Amino acid sequence: MRRNDNFARLNKNYLFTEIEKRVAAFKAKEPSAKLISLSVGDTSQSIPPSIAKGLVQKITDLQVNETYSGYGPSQGDRALREKIAEAFYENKISADEIFISDGAKCDIGRLQLLFGEKSKIVLQNPTYPVYLDSSLLMGQTEISALPALPDNGFFPEFGKVKEVDLIYFCSPNNPTGVAATKEQLKELVSFAKSRCAVIIFDSAYAGFIRDPSLPRSIYEIEGAEECAIEVSSFSKLIGFTGVRLGWSVVPKALKYENGLSVHDDWQRVMATFFNGASNIAQAGGVAALTPEGVEEMRGLTDYYLENVRLLRGALQPMGYPIYGGEAAPYLWVDFGEERFQEFLERYHILTTPGSGFGSAGKGFLRFSGFGSREDILEATRRLKREVSYQNSDR
Amino acid sequence: MRRNDNFARLNKNYLFTEIEKRVAAFKAKEPSAKLISLSVGDTSQSIPPSIAKGLVQKITDLQVNETYSGYGPSQGDRALREKIAEAFYENKISADEIFISDGAKCDIGRLQLLFGEKSKIVLQNPTYPVYLDSSLLMGQTEISALPALPDNGFFPEFGKVKEVDLIYFCSPNNPTGVAATKEQLKELVSFAKSRCAVIIFDSAYAGFIRDPSLPRSIYEIEGAEECAIEVSSFSKLIGFTGVRLGWSVVPKALKYENGLSVHDDWQRVMATFFNGASNIAQAGGVAALTPEGVEEMRGLTDYYLENVRLLRGALQPMGYPIYGGEAAPYLWVDFGEERFQEFLERYHILTTPGSGFGSAGKGFLRFSGFGSREDILEATRRLKREVSYQNSDR
Repeated sequence: MRRNDNFARLNKNYLFTEIEKRVAAFKAKEPSAKLISLSVGDTSQSIPPSIAKGLVQKITDLQVNETYSGYGPSQGDRALREKIAEAFYENKISADEIFISDGAKCDIGRLQLLFGEKSKIVLQNPTYPVYLDSSLLMGQTEISALPALPDNGFFPEFGKVKEVDLIYFCSPNNPTGVAATKEQLKELVSFAKSRCAVIIFDSAYAGFIRDPSLPRSIYEIEGAEECAIEVSSFSKLIGFTGVRLGWSVVPKALKYENGLSVHDDWQRVMATFFNGASNIAQAGGVAALTPEGVEEMRGLTDYYLENVRLLRGALQPMGYPIYGGEAAPYLWVDFGEERFQEFLERYHILTTPGSGFGSAGKGFLRFSGFGSREDILEATRRLKREVSYQNSDR
Repeated sequence: MRRNDNFARLNKNYLFTEIEKRVAAFKAKEPSAKLISLSVGDTSQSIPPSIAKGLVQKITDLQVNETYSGYGPSQGDRALREKIAEAFYENKISADEIFISDGAKCDIGRLQLLFGEKSKIVLQNPTYPVYLDSSLLMGQTEISALPALPDNGFFPEFGKVKEVDLIYFCSPNNPTGVAATKEQLKELVSFAKSRCAVIIFDSAYAGFIRDPSLPRSIYEIEGAEECAIEVSSFSKLIGFTGVRLGWSVVPKALKYENGLSVHDDWQRVMATFFNGASNIAQAGGVAALTPEGVEEMRGLTDYYLENVRLLRGALQPMGYPIYGGEAAPYLWVDFGEERFQEFLERYHILTTPGSGFGSAGKGFLRFSGFGSREDILEATRRLKREVSYQNSDR
């Protein structure tokens, strides 16, 4: 009954637990305050009708022996994989290279099983905490977090890294809300190739990109299929955070240094540690990729982008640098010092402290646009009122 | 891009892949043959009406902003955990000790993250292959598989093992279909305690137990809460193999040798490597544990038990020892030699070769009762015809 030593290496103040405690303390002090959460990136808007119809149709099928099905194909429903290949990869990636899962987060941890026990890992700083925590729990000891800050265009100086096996890279980025440019991703691919490293590219927010010059997938970069795995998700695009549906791409061209296929091993890992995404969720994914579903997905992502535009408008008069928000519904605001507690107590607004995403996030707050329009508008009113009060006060 | 060395340790002829190949070869040879599968344990019968209603109701809720929800509580829906505590554990286990997941298989791999990097692992032989494969891929090197055969009542001689950290034990057992008795499980718990080891008890088939003297959970044994984790599943009970819903139990009384809580670490592992079972599936689980749902679950499990009773009737006249089938819809038949190919070619019936579950399964075949009644009856007709033909031939 020995404990996995790696637990001791985890940061004890796990971001969201810490926030919960601070909020509980505030609520105890001010029980009547109406808190607005611009914190955790959970969706607030209902599942659109044609996608919901796809979910219900599957249940209708599961109620009749003739159309009932149990375990699906181990890589996931073929129709869904074909639609993903077409919709997200213009068929540059084939259905055989796509693996349906219950979400990008779950794939992030499992993927480490592919590589050597002691992989050298490079992360962005700030970063989605799961890349770090899963690496630590898997026993990885050589982990570097490279600063991604306004002054380097949120793109780390990878060139300084001598040896690396795995690079986690998220674009559009959580927490900064900034998408990498094509030039930056070319540099990333070229760096990975020069070090014989694998990129794990997290494109969970790619559906929010509107600027056609920004890549939505790492495979838009030439040669990426030889050095990159992509993880992605329906969660934020169609209100599926609770329904659970994502996918990974492991190209057949991706080989280990010994020439063996990474794809074959990933099939084995998925068959051993996973048993398929819910067939109901998969039917919803198929519905989301019909013309009607795609339009609904666009409407839903537009809604959250408009939320974040409104928030930006309310924060701008404060005069602090604001990043992100155009390719993902997160704003990353540089206050130069910790302001979580102040937003909680003065505006009754919950944000996410940047330091929760790594040391380079210190002094930043993340504002999420995933709330309801009513909440966002109320938040903007509170922020604007305060600003005009401050201005008139001077 | 180094490959995880542990892949090389996996058995290359992964059971189901091997079966697929043999079947493909047979089909190419006899394209008109109507094959009946009594092989992989997938369910064939539709989801019962009141459970399906629960699934659909959740989608209705997800379509309206006021009742929409995204990420659920990280341990899973509280109502579901309370119902599981009551229905399966008579509240001897509390809702706080239950973690909802997407299935027992997925928990089996994740659970190893709790324990020291080099855990000494004991399995039954034969065994569900996932215990072994996940252990190998996680880098475990000290794995013993103890024979569980008719002559030891399918209960290994644990006493011979000096040092062990983790014991995987499945009852009712896959592949043998045999449930451990209360005396055997008392011995198992006492053995685990004497070695300060943890039992990972897989009760995915407990819903098929009809004999009231047989334990349905390890926690029916006194003291088990101090040395056992249980994994279980709705898959086979309500036709959820494709819908995906299971749970694990990590009692608060379970401590590492250093006195720290295993439960706290499991919360952390689940929050890092998992993101919740589908909320739709969870609503189905709640519906399955209403009085109406429980009745439907009983009807469905009775159906498969009747299937396996019919199969037994057809196999008995062949004169080979038949085990299992009363507490799980699997028959484990001791032919004394490999008969997979013969059943395929002579009866056009697919079975699972016992050797796929470990060396001690050599000479056995597993027959699954999860097919439709029509298929089971057709299989029994083919088997009986053959037997009477053989008899008249003598």
